[in-house]
Amino acid sequence: MALLVTGSIGIDTVTSPHGSVDSVLGGSAVYFSFAAAHYCPVRLVAVVGEDFPTEFRSTLETRGIDLTGLETRAGSKTFRWAGKYVGDMNEAETVGVELNVLAEAGPKVPAGIADSDTVFLANTHPGLQRELLSQVTSPKLTVMDTMNLWIENERDSLIETIGMVTGVIINDAESRQLTGKMNLIEAGEAVLGMGPKFVMIKKGEHGALLVTPEGPVAIPAFPTKRVCDPTGAGDSFAGGTLGYLTAEGKHDPATLARAMVRGTVAASFTIEDFSLGRVKDLARGEIDARVDKFLSMLRFE
Amino acid sequence: MALLVTGSIGIDTVTSPHGSVDSVLGGSAVYFSFAAAHYCPVRLVAVVGEDFPTEFRSTLETRGIDLTGLETRAGSKTFRWAGKYVGDMNEAETVGVELNVLAEAGPKVPAGIADSDTVFLANTHPGLQRELLSQVTSPKLTVMDTMNLWIENERDSLIETIGMVTGVIINDAESRQLTGKMNLIEAGEAVLGMGPKFVMIKKGEHGALLVTPEGPVAIPAFPTKRVCDPTGAGDSFAGGTLGYLTAEGKHDPATLARAMVRGTVAASFTIEDFSLGRVKDLARGEIDARVDKFLSMLRFE
Repeated sequence: MALLVTGSIGIDTVTSPHGSVDSVLGGSAVYFSFAAAHYCPVRLVAVVGEDFPTEFRSTLETRGIDLTGLETRAGSKTFRWAGKYVGDMNEAETVGVELNVLAEAGPKVPAGIADSDTVFLANTHPGLQRELLSQVTSPKLTVMDTMNLWIENERDSLIETIGMVTGVIINDAESRQLTGKMNLIEAGEAVLGMGPKFVMIKKGEHGALLVTPEGPVAIPAFPTKRVCDPTGAGDSFAGGTLGYLTAEGKHDPATLARAMVRGTVAASFTIEDFSLGRVKDLARGEIDARVDKFLSMLRFE
Repeated sequence: MALLVTGSIGIDTVTSPHGSVDSVLGGSAVYFSFAAAHYCPVRLVAVVGEDFPTEFRSTLETRGIDLTGLETRAGSKTFRWAGKYVGDMNEAETVGVELNVLAEAGPKVPAGIADSDTVFLANTHPGLQRELLSQVTSPKLTVMDTMNLWIENERDSLIETIGMVTGVIINDAESRQLTGKMNLIEAGEAVLGMGPKFVMIKKGEHGALLVTPEGPVAIPAFPTKRVCDPTGAGDSFAGGTLGYLTAEGKHDPATLARAMVRGTVAASFTIEDFSLGRVKDLARGEIDARVDKFLSMLRFE
């Protein structure tokens, strides 16, 4: 069972109350892949520019991520993002963006990995999400993320894409913006009304909410004092969740809830350091131990 | 084992997206008492004015709440509060306050109920909290709440009171304001440094966090679409929590975590209707069923 992810690869510059890093590896597809790769084979589909450092490519290869779908585009530069976290660190303030290669044509899904069982469409233009999805032959589980930009400017296209996937993983503010519902269960149900079988609403330090026709399941975040850099937490959540679901080979509500625990734990490691600092060499045993600790915390009997 | 609560009784006027009510029964001690009374005998210590309606008194008596400590002060008027909820309804906007009897001398603890095992000091001036606490002979468990007003204006007095209690139940914004720590575990630990053995941080729709020397325990709120009026949710949380702890007769970390589940469920009923609409005639069986449902939701194995 293999998991294909389409999304961004970025060179990030991040400042938080705990320090700052300059030109480090980032991007939704990267964080997702590192979290998912503990559970199943991961195939990354993305585009970078000629300036993409060899060491970043090695970092991905070392984790065993399949880079068949990683296109290095001649004459282009890699996406760059600079952000800053202040206060409760729940949201980044973007201080600089260079779209570069992300403003050009999207990547293609090579034939050799078009047989993937699971597809995660990280945030990008909903039209490109559909185009990428259509290149995967017969996926059993398809999940997408999105962002405020597309909700505002590409609403019809976004709703068309939502209608084609099994699940949506989205943050709380965006679920409210998309549906006009302030109550998150109502927001989740409104998204279900667009077609998907499940919605996971990410609430940052407040955890996550799963909404299916069988009802809501709420989960807290893993409580931690080590919040260095929240960048990639949401993508790591999606990665841990979908890696687990792909390995399990099913996505009924109970399995989705268990998967959300793995997503929560994946995110809890990512935020402990800048960039991939904490997760680069993370062992599966460390993950499983934290899953056990988290489940033990939630045993109130 | 009996539980004594000191706090406000109010006549509230509330507007939310679901409607509005005028001059209904409210106040911290009232919401607390209704939640706690399902678990143990509750003794209410508060002051009202001559205008306090007989029917409100009957409502309290019907639930079996001991009103020995309820003083009706001649020539005074009952505390009145008017508030409005908008948007995500996480915080009330106060549109009117008449302190009335709350601006006068506090109540006294009658000798007949001074032998209470547990004391909850709902939010009021920290000096009055100490005065009330000193009137209870030998409590085994003492817990307090507070608010931004005292953190700003009576900081030294507040810290003195915090140093005298077993536990603090406080909301997230106030824990941050009190300690200067943005991370809630760090905020909780800073409060522990002032003397108490545990801190529960209330996060509204995002649940709650228990902090003890044994580490943090996070719990989500009970997920519900029925959020009519959040007034009293925090006091109901404290009431369910302390009612359970009083009945259990212990407050080790595992019992505190189980108590927090009862507090969460108590709050989830309160918010379903205005004032005491939902909890007035609530049966213990309904509470236990929701506790079971909540625990079942949190069983991810």
